[in-house]
Amino acid sequence: MSIIELIVKKRDGGAFSTSEIHQLIAFICDPSIPDFQISAILMAIYLKGMNEREVVDLTLAMAHSGDSLDFGTIEGIVVDKHSTGGVGDKTSLVLMPLVAAAGLKVAKISGRGLGHTGGTLDKLSVFEGFRYDLTKDEIITGVQSRGIVLTGQTDHMVPADMRMYALRDLTATVDALPLIASSIMSKKIAAGAQAILLDVKVGSGAIFSNIDRARQLARIMVSIGRSLDIPTKAILTDMNAPLGRAVGNALEVKEAIETLQGGGNRQLKDLCLYLGSKLLVLSGKISSSQDATNQLDMLIKSGKALNQLKVMVEGQGGKSEYINHPEKILLSPLQLTLKASQSGYIQSIHAQKIGRGSMYSGAGRVHKDDKLDLGAGILLHKDSGDFVHVGEALLTIYASHQVKLENAMDAVRDAFAINTTEPELEPLIKEEL
Amino acid sequence: MSIIELIVKKRDGGAFSTSEIHQLIAFICDPSIPDFQISAILMAIYLKGMNEREVVDLTLAMAHSGDSLDFGTIEGIVVDKHSTGGVGDKTSLVLMPLVAAAGLKVAKISGRGLGHTGGTLDKLSVFEGFRYDLTKDEIITGVQSRGIVLTGQTDHMVPADMRMYALRDLTATVDALPLIASSIMSKKIAAGAQAILLDVKVGSGAIFSNIDRARQLARIMVSIGRSLDIPTKAILTDMNAPLGRAVGNALEVKEAIETLQGGGNRQLKDLCLYLGSKLLVLSGKISSSQDATNQLDMLIKSGKALNQLKVMVEGQGGKSEYINHPEKILLSPLQLTLKASQSGYIQSIHAQKIGRGSMYSGAGRVHKDDKLDLGAGILLHKDSGDFVHVGEALLTIYASHQVKLENAMDAVRDAFAINTTEPELEPLIKEEL
Repeated sequence: MSIIELIVKKRDGGAFSTSEIHQLIAFICDPSIPDFQISAILMAIYLKGMNEREVVDLTLAMAHSGDSLDFGTIEGIVVDKHSTGGVGDKTSLVLMPLVAAAGLKVAKISGRGLGHTGGTLDKLSVFEGFRYDLTKDEIITGVQSRGIVLTGQTDHMVPADMRMYALRDLTATVDALPLIASSIMSKKIAAGAQAILLDVKVGSGAIFSNIDRARQLARIMVSIGRSLDIPTKAILTDMNAPLGRAVGNALEVKEAIETLQGGGNRQLKDLCLYLGSKLLVLSGKISSSQDATNQLDMLIKSGKALNQLKVMVEGQGGKSEYINHPEKILLSPLQLTLKASQSGYIQSIHAQKIGRGSMYSGAGRVHKDDKLDLGAGILLHKDSGDFVHVGEALLTIYASHQVKLENAMDAVRDAFAINTTEPELEPLIKEEL
Repeated sequence: MSIIELIVKKRDGGAFSTSEIHQLIAFICDPSIPDFQISAILMAIYLKGMNEREVVDLTLAMAHSGDSLDFGTIEGIVVDKHSTGGVGDKTSLVLMPLVAAAGLKVAKISGRGLGHTGGTLDKLSVFEGFRYDLTKDEIITGVQSRGIVLTGQTDHMVPADMRMYALRDLTATVDALPLIASSIMSKKIAAGAQAILLDVKVGSGAIFSNIDRARQLARIMVSIGRSLDIPTKAILTDMNAPLGRAVGNALEVKEAIETLQGGGNRQLKDLCLYLGSKLLVLSGKISSSQDATNQLDMLIKSGKALNQLKVMVEGQGGKSEYINHPEKILLSPLQLTLKASQSGYIQSIHAQKIGRGSMYSGAGRVHKDDKLDLGAGILLHKDSGDFVHVGEALLTIYASHQVKLENAMDAVRDAFAINTTEPELEPLIKEEL
């Protein structure tokens, strides 16, 4: 079948056979097939959808379009966690060392941030010298020797996804469930994950503010994993408000370290314990969630989880002094504080506005080639449900230029909703699939 | 609005405003906008459609995207006829000289053939030296001095359509009514047409075998013309069987000349008289169709129509000796005849199979850069409804290579349906709008 015949089939609402999916991915990996034919088929997929079998086939074909990691010789279950992206989501920095300390193996391929959501690789850059361009062999030996690797995608992994993603980004075809699900899951499978936990965010700061769409995405991904016999679980979590109080790379690393030290933000710590316990159960390491939670809590108290972060950072060439001295982490020199314009209870903190404010402060990318100011960002002083008095500080913006401070302030000025009645707070964890 | 925002709007089923349509056409004419974004929006338009106002706006914006012809200073109405393409459709070669002889002005921009349908420019190439690359000025002075010009699109006319068409061809987005209608009508408008007659073909040899789709296309085009105050009429005509008996460039030119000489195929002549009378009425030259038909018939009988063809061919640098001696037109040297395998009435002659046979003989292009064999093609010896005896010749294939003869024969072998009962023939002219 030619690429045009494949376009026609999807354009007319047909379902691709398994061999047609393989042909499609072969075309996507073939540089002689022009971008404009790929983008036409992506738009047809966006508008006509794919059935579950097509998405499973697509995911597998993508996963096998390039290099993949094989941890068959390594003892222990190699686990991965994926968040669909949010504001202040530094979970990976806490959770992955934590479960590695509990004996799971971690080989996590992360990405950089774009728009109002951050990326784990940018946060790891706070540790000067940290390498996230590990080769395939370095990843495998890293997991073997240290139990944990957090790195970026290698050039040779999932090339089909790289080409599709670059085009989707520029043709308004990002937000299609079959394409999102196969993009995420193909990378997990290529990275050799033997158990996968998916943290699907719902709310103003997430890809989906609609819980039905988030649930659909979660279902498709869980079904992909299970149909490939990989234990897979999805959790829907709230992203109407930022996660924790720190948004921005250095600020988030600081909060993550504090959490591993046993302090930090309560909600962040609870989420990490919850996700960690699910991973331990999912991988068959422990059968009871409660036992798992207790064990993870102990690993924080004993300093073993924090030490695991240190081992990872040093193993990948990063300076680790911040890990014992998070107060030394450099923040941007200029600050601006947003104060409450009235007294009352904080009804909500708008995650997307805070995310955009952080981006404008210099912590995020408006365009994908933008250079980041690692010390920039936003620190919240209050949580949803707190009572504030008029004039009290709600947040502080960090930036290196006055104009960035002001741009950020414009974005966050009405991020807090304050009212005299005490709000009923939504639970952070909404559903489990 | 950015191109991505326009993609999002159409992807989500929105209707573009007039200014958004102008923005879209500006993007399409901007070489810095990549093809893959244009093809994504074309697929979104294909699948989500456009309302009538959008199509009118699109047509006008496309028409004004480059050079346009202005015949304001020329006396007489400049008319154009467009056929949506068929097999053996040499109508333009007969009709345009005929109506020019009747005093209408003709400035017709034609195209080359692709696939199983022929193109007027290829047929005109049979007149050695004939130039169809006239400049804007040459077109205007040609119409002024000779009353008729048949030529190709200039480089600077409707550049938006050129880019869109090239992409549509390779992304399975040709067959979308708003895009077909605006492509056809924008070229007519840019070419300065003051009255437009549309011959929308229906049947196996046409773009649409379904009369509802053909009628929809006709309606949209008529509505575009009328909303721009250009008298416009559409006729739906049958293209289940080839038009006339000749298919292939030299063969068709021969049949066209014979028709202008008063002979030729009855059905072809009747269609030309019918379309010609509609053009005369549409342009306000004559009020009664019957009077118009009589006048046109006289112009054939008197030789004035044939002379008008001669004036045009010579005026555009072509050798005109064939016009008085069509028997001298060179045909390809090899021939192969298909004979009736049974006796009976011809129920139908499958236009698409004959068209594909002609293409394989060398008369048409499989790929758009293929060189043509002008003398190749297919000559039918019978019409639908005729009685044939077993072994009688049904058609002759002309080609320059044995293998082309055989490929063509494979395509046409079962093009004739023969049965013992006399068929009821469909009328050639189906509807008028």
